[in-house]
Amino acid sequence: MLNQKTEKDVIARLKKIEGQIRGVQRMIDEGRYCVDVVMQITAAEAALHGAAEIILKNHLQTCVLAAFRSDDTKECQEKVDELMKVYGKLRSR
Amino acid sequence: MLNQKTEKDVIARLKKIEGQIRGVQRMIDEGRYCVDVVMQITAAEAALHGAAEIILKNHLQTCVLAAFRSDDTKECQEKVDELMKVYGKLRSR
Amino acid sequence: MLNQKTEKDVIARLKKIEGQIRGVQRMIDEGRYCVDVVMQITAAEAALHGAAEIILKNHLQTCVLAAFRSDDTKECQEKVDELMKVYGKLRSR
Amino acid sequence: MLNQKTEKDVIARLKKIEGQIRGVQRMIDEGRYCVDVVMQITAAEAALHGAAEIILKNHLQTCVLAAFRSDDTKECQEKVDELMKVYGKLRSR
Repeated sequence: MLNQKTEKDVIARLKKIEGQIRGVQRMIDEGRYCVDVVMQITAAEAALHGAAEIILKNHLQTCVLAAFRSDDTKECQEKVDELMKVYGKLRSR
Repeated sequence: MLNQKTEKDVIARLKKIEGQIRGVQRMIDEGRYCVDVVMQITAAEAALHGAAEIILKNHLQTCVLAAFRSDDTKECQEKVDELMKVYGKLRSR
Repeated sequence: MLNQKTEKDVIARLKKIEGQIRGVQRMIDEGRYCVDVVMQITAAEAALHGAAEIILKNHLQTCVLAAFRSDDTKECQEKVDELMKVYGKLRSR
Repeated sequence: MLNQKTEKDVIARLKKIEGQIRGVQRMIDEGRYCVDVVMQITAAEAALHGAAEIILKNHLQTCVLAAFRSDDTKECQEKVDELMKVYGKLRSR
């Protein structure tokens, strides 16, 4: 779970990204140049990525920290596996 | 500019992605597990990327084709530079 | 095929990258800090990517240009499909 | 630092990647088709990435675990910052 400040920040970013995606639709409606449209889409992707990184940092500082401090080996291993899965996904977008 | 079929397809995808991003906001409101939220965000990124690829393919088949068939060297060079810029952006999201 | 200047440039880059990868092996032998090793590996990846981009640019300026200027629709389509495959690969490294 | 088994595995992978990069140089010497060369380069990039992921997993299981178990807040924060830097790098290759 996110702390309140992080949650507010991420929600605000996601709302802005929604707006960006509606903006892309308008660009297409207006028959704007393909390359400009693609650039706007990649800007939205980068913004989404920024939101994911904030959540991930919070996750390391809370959930992963708690798991690693517990004596639960299985729990620790799970957290490592999840992080590696996230790394893989972040990379292969 | 996109042909009508491609335009309809891309707009439908973008609307779906808007829905995904609202879904991520709901997940955060409900206090869902950070890793699941991050995974949903990366799914939305992948979907955006899919939309960009469709536009890019259309761009190659129309604008780039037309430019390369013209005798306008400057126009050709511009298209190559734009494509390289797009490659760079697609990669560094 | 690459023109001579591009070929020389790319070969020089690849030799340098070989050296970087040997450097990473030395870092590991010396028991260097994991994060520094990972950073060196990502530097080598970025360098490889730079080499790929040079080849790609040359490809657009020669093979794709020639195909698009021919009246061979099948040939054009093949070039577009290859470029889309390369885009996908470049992205998902 | 890597444990002996991981170290051996990573070194073996890096030697194989060196071979791949020499293979790319041969392909260029032989005048092979640009797209095939680019595909080989991206294969080498993926292999490098695989090596980085193994080191990263080992890092989480040892250094990050140890730091998080210590009571040293500054040390913990440093590890989080490093991981976020690595995430950023892995992504933007």
